Amino acid sequence: MATASTAELTPAQLVDQHRPTLDQALETIRTRAYWSPHPEHPKAYGENAAAEGQAAFEALRGKRLGLDQPGTDAWVGGEVSPYGPELGVEYPHPDADVLLPAMRAAMPAWRDAGPEARAMVCLEILSRISARTHEFAHAVMHTSGQAFMMAFQAGGPHAQDRGLEAVAYAYREQVRVPEAADWSKPQGKRDPLNLSKRFTAVPRGVALLIGCNTFPTWNGYSGLFASLATGNAVLVKPHPRAVLPLALTVAVAREVLAEAGFDPNLVALAAERPGEGLAKTLALRPEIRVIDYTGSTAFGDWLEANARQAQVFTEKAGVNTVVVDSTDDYRGMLANLAFSLSLYSGQMCTTPQNLLIPREGITTDAGHKSYDEVVTDLAGAVQGLLGDDARAAALLGAIVNPQVRERLEAAAGLGEVALATRAVAHPDFPGATVRTPVIVKLDGAKPDDEAAFLSECFGPVSFAVAVDSTADAVGLLRRTVRDKGAMTVGAYTTSPEVERLVEEACLEECAQLSLNLTGGVYVNQTAAFSDFHGSGGNPAANSALCDGAFVASRFRMVEVRRQA
Amino acid sequence: MATASTAELTPAQLVDQHRPTLDQALETIRTRAYWSPHPEHPKAYGENAAAEGQAAFEALRGKRLGLDQPGTDAWVGGEVSPYGPELGVEYPHPDADVLLPAMRAAMPAWRDAGPEARAMVCLEILSRISARTHEFAHAVMHTSGQAFMMAFQAGGPHAQDRGLEAVAYAYREQVRVPEAADWSKPQGKRDPLNLSKRFTAVPRGVALLIGCNTFPTWNGYSGLFASLATGNAVLVKPHPRAVLPLALTVAVAREVLAEAGFDPNLVALAAERPGEGLAKTLALRPEIRVIDYTGSTAFGDWLEANARQAQVFTEKAGVNTVVVDSTDDYRGMLANLAFSLSLYSGQMCTTPQNLLIPREGITTDAGHKSYDEVVTDLAGAVQGLLGDDARAAALLGAIVNPQVRERLEAAAGLGEVALATRAVAHPDFPGATVRTPVIVKLDGAKPDDEAAFLSECFGPVSFAVAVDSTADAVGLLRRTVRDKGAMTVGAYTTSPEVERLVEEACLEECAQLSLNLTGGVYVNQTAAFSDFHGSGGNPAANSALCDGAFVASRFRMVEVRRQA
Repeated sequence: MATASTAELTPAQLVDQHRPTLDQALETIRTRAYWSPHPEHPKAYGENAAAEGQAAFEALRGKRLGLDQPGTDAWVGGEVSPYGPELGVEYPHPDADVLLPAMRAAMPAWRDAGPEARAMVCLEILSRISARTHEFAHAVMHTSGQAFMMAFQAGGPHAQDRGLEAVAYAYREQVRVPEAADWSKPQGKRDPLNLSKRFTAVPRGVALLIGCNTFPTWNGYSGLFASLATGNAVLVKPHPRAVLPLALTVAVAREVLAEAGFDPNLVALAAERPGEGLAKTLALRPEIRVIDYTGSTAFGDWLEANARQAQVFTEKAGVNTVVVDSTDDYRGMLANLAFSLSLYSGQMCTTPQNLLIPREGITTDAGHKSYDEVVTDLAGAVQGLLGDDARAAALLGAIVNPQVRERLEAAAGLGEVALATRAVAHPDFPGATVRTPVIVKLDGAKPDDEAAFLSECFGPVSFAVAVDSTADAVGLLRRTVRDKGAMTVGAYTTSPEVERLVEEACLEECAQLSLNLTGGVYVNQTAAFSDFHGSGGNPAANSALCDGAFVASRFRMVEVRRQA
Repeated sequence: MATASTAELTPAQLVDQHRPTLDQALETIRTRAYWSPHPEHPKAYGENAAAEGQAAFEALRGKRLGLDQPGTDAWVGGEVSPYGPELGVEYPHPDADVLLPAMRAAMPAWRDAGPEARAMVCLEILSRISARTHEFAHAVMHTSGQAFMMAFQAGGPHAQDRGLEAVAYAYREQVRVPEAADWSKPQGKRDPLNLSKRFTAVPRGVALLIGCNTFPTWNGYSGLFASLATGNAVLVKPHPRAVLPLALTVAVAREVLAEAGFDPNLVALAAERPGEGLAKTLALRPEIRVIDYTGSTAFGDWLEANARQAQVFTEKAGVNTVVVDSTDDYRGMLANLAFSLSLYSGQMCTTPQNLLIPREGITTDAGHKSYDEVVTDLAGAVQGLLGDDARAAALLGAIVNPQVRERLEAAAGLGEVALATRAVAHPDFPGATVRTPVIVKLDGAKPDDEAAFLSECFGPVSFAVAVDSTADAVGLLRRTVRDKGAMTVGAYTTSPEVERLVEEACLEECAQLSLNLTGGVYVNQTAAFSDFHGSGGNPAANSALCDGAFVASRFRMVEVRRQA
């Protein structure tokens, strides 16, 4: 247990500072109203925060990021910003035979500290990350290719929200069982049977977080903090193209753990050599008992099948669908969809891919619109949104890796191009690959087209799929979710009957549904404390951010009972 | 949804009748104090209950138990009581291609009914089973071989408690998220973003319960009711030697579901032909999305590895250990252990197998006792407990199957026999195989002996293992739990330091510990609402009865959000 005498951060100080935040988070995951303690606006961080954050980021470049971890056998790096510059940061490469035992040795004291103390330390880590949001924003921007504002918001406050949400779920789950209980069973005329019982939440072991390229913090913080708050040590294996945001996270976590009197080896980094495939090796180590993963379906399926000693939480690929049946706000619908398809160049796991549109057309407040008109108008809306290069760059960000660019370029060969991609000159990074989305027309009744639209085409590629009817669209939606999975489903309709059909399809196939979004909320965005990210019930993901199932199996409850 | 007009049991009636019980169960899983709504004493069920229960059981024999299930393609049966008599009951054999689609079709209305209505129906099912506890006791006795009183208590009220506990956990987990939420995100000077959200707990699919021979109801009800309460349909595949208790359960469930206006196919029976291996076939069906299993490690491991489309909850084999270090109640310790080893002929997954005793002996309130003395005194305690045949039969019950008898007979060849087994004449069933336990002396330092005591030897066989020291015993305990798993661990010690060592071993290896039991509570008994059965964190079981993790992944939460 942390001893107040040696720790710089005492348990009481941490409770004073963070318990109200935890309580508000606990209340919000119950009401699911809007709330966040992490400001979205860059200016909220103080007058000098922007300049200091950028300077802090620049100061990291070309240096070693030392973490003082045991078992460092090499220094590795090689990140190149999707905007062009090399980052030049080097990270410790682990000798797992030294590092993992050190992490295990750190766990008993962390377990003994109990759920509240662990939550408080997690909140202190999040709070220090929050204070450095500008610095993290640059790190996220120059690894993911997100535009600065998105890197700031999604990589900063929104990611921190997801981390805090996971801590709240983890805390609540652990305190459902009391620390102690007196049990007295009546025995008629004889004395009752009396037992004194103690219950302790014990960790599974070392948790492995396998980070992704596009959202290293947003997709990583739920698993990281859920595992840490439930008593596990966490080994962070970032995507080799997006190490820096998670390496900074590990650095902050180690600093706070040490100050609070715990062993900093409760959180460690595992950076890898080019082509090493370190995730695969680590995932099969017997010490690893929890794995969080975001990435390809192939590796996610491999983890689920092979890392049998671990609880495996995966977010994999999916095919997101929007059913377009009818609308009473045609312009709003087009604007909303155009934004959804463009944001971060469609490189979100939640971006719509297939827009299912009846070939007979749809009814709208602007009159009947044929299939061709809808597609043309949507293409126009995207062009309008991205007409100005500076604005386009600020919305699109950069293409994250060559594979996305290859898919984008191949898309034109799949069908009739309703909207071609164009290269956008980035005002700040002239060499950056910034590309507007492509929209391809496909026919839902043609097998060749189906082969195209029923595969995930990650990146700025959408398919306007002509279907025979809305009923046909709902049937295709069901089949898509069941066979390919979906992180999101959208629908536009003015018909209560169609609404009911789409809702029933989503309830039965287990997908999260957004209906008739025409304003400033987009199908690809979910908010922590209120929205679930993924359902965990279709092939796109085996878990949801965040719910009881995401935290409950990360620890076990051990009971010690004595005759009283 | 159930419509009051056609249903005999209206939702309001069910809430009136059962909501207070649910509330008390919810409160008790939080405090973990003693509570049960199901009386343990046979006389509590009314003056004629015993005779009526026995008559009801007798009336079932030699008949078909019709369940009016769709897709019945044959009638199967063949249970023989471990006490001798053939049961002669026949059950419907399913055509899964007809039955499973019928079960799936029943689910949407059950989902729409919501968590409270589902909990109320589950409690009505349990309440009707409770009213027939005498009848169920005979069914459990004549399939498991348990003595009547144990079949009555463990197969009746204790099993019903576990079912109710699972309903309480399932209900609480589902209502952690509200049905609806209004979300309003401030946008500075602009209008806030407003969304209206609805959250629905949706089932995984059809759940498969694979029953066991020894505790068909006790080990079955947690999974059955957890799955049903979370909206799934449940297909019950009993052990071919213990069909009747679960077939009666299915009959009651179908009756209640129909009366409450739901499709009875939400619960169905899958009885099998001899040697059919139906569990293996059903477990791989795509409709099956949840599996609960109690039985051998080999088949449990197979399910975990192969039924990848399902959430798999298993209780498998383990090697339970008692560390004997010292005691201040030598007689109490011996009496408590003697009872634990004898109850139901050691055929409980929680019965101690290995008693680790320092070869130098132990300190007790009756003076120092050598290893040999402890073993001899324990053998004497067992002999004393089982000296009277009628009393012995009432405690031992019958040997459940020939494999247990074979192991019992082979045990004498493993080492020096400290207590030999003897055949007991059963007063009511003269041909029954009733056998007292055997205690074999083994040496913890000998590899041949280790091979014997580190394998599960299910049945009335215990090993008195001589170890070099208590520290050595704790080391062996750790290794046993880590490599072989354990449902229970016991320890006797007067030393706070030894207590701490054993506790730390159990916390790190994740096993449930009972300390210094010398009275009327036994290491092999756990009470619903208070004790965890298994930890889910060692190889003996991947789940615990009952906790959040046991229910949280049986359903998923689907969100439908609309612009407000």
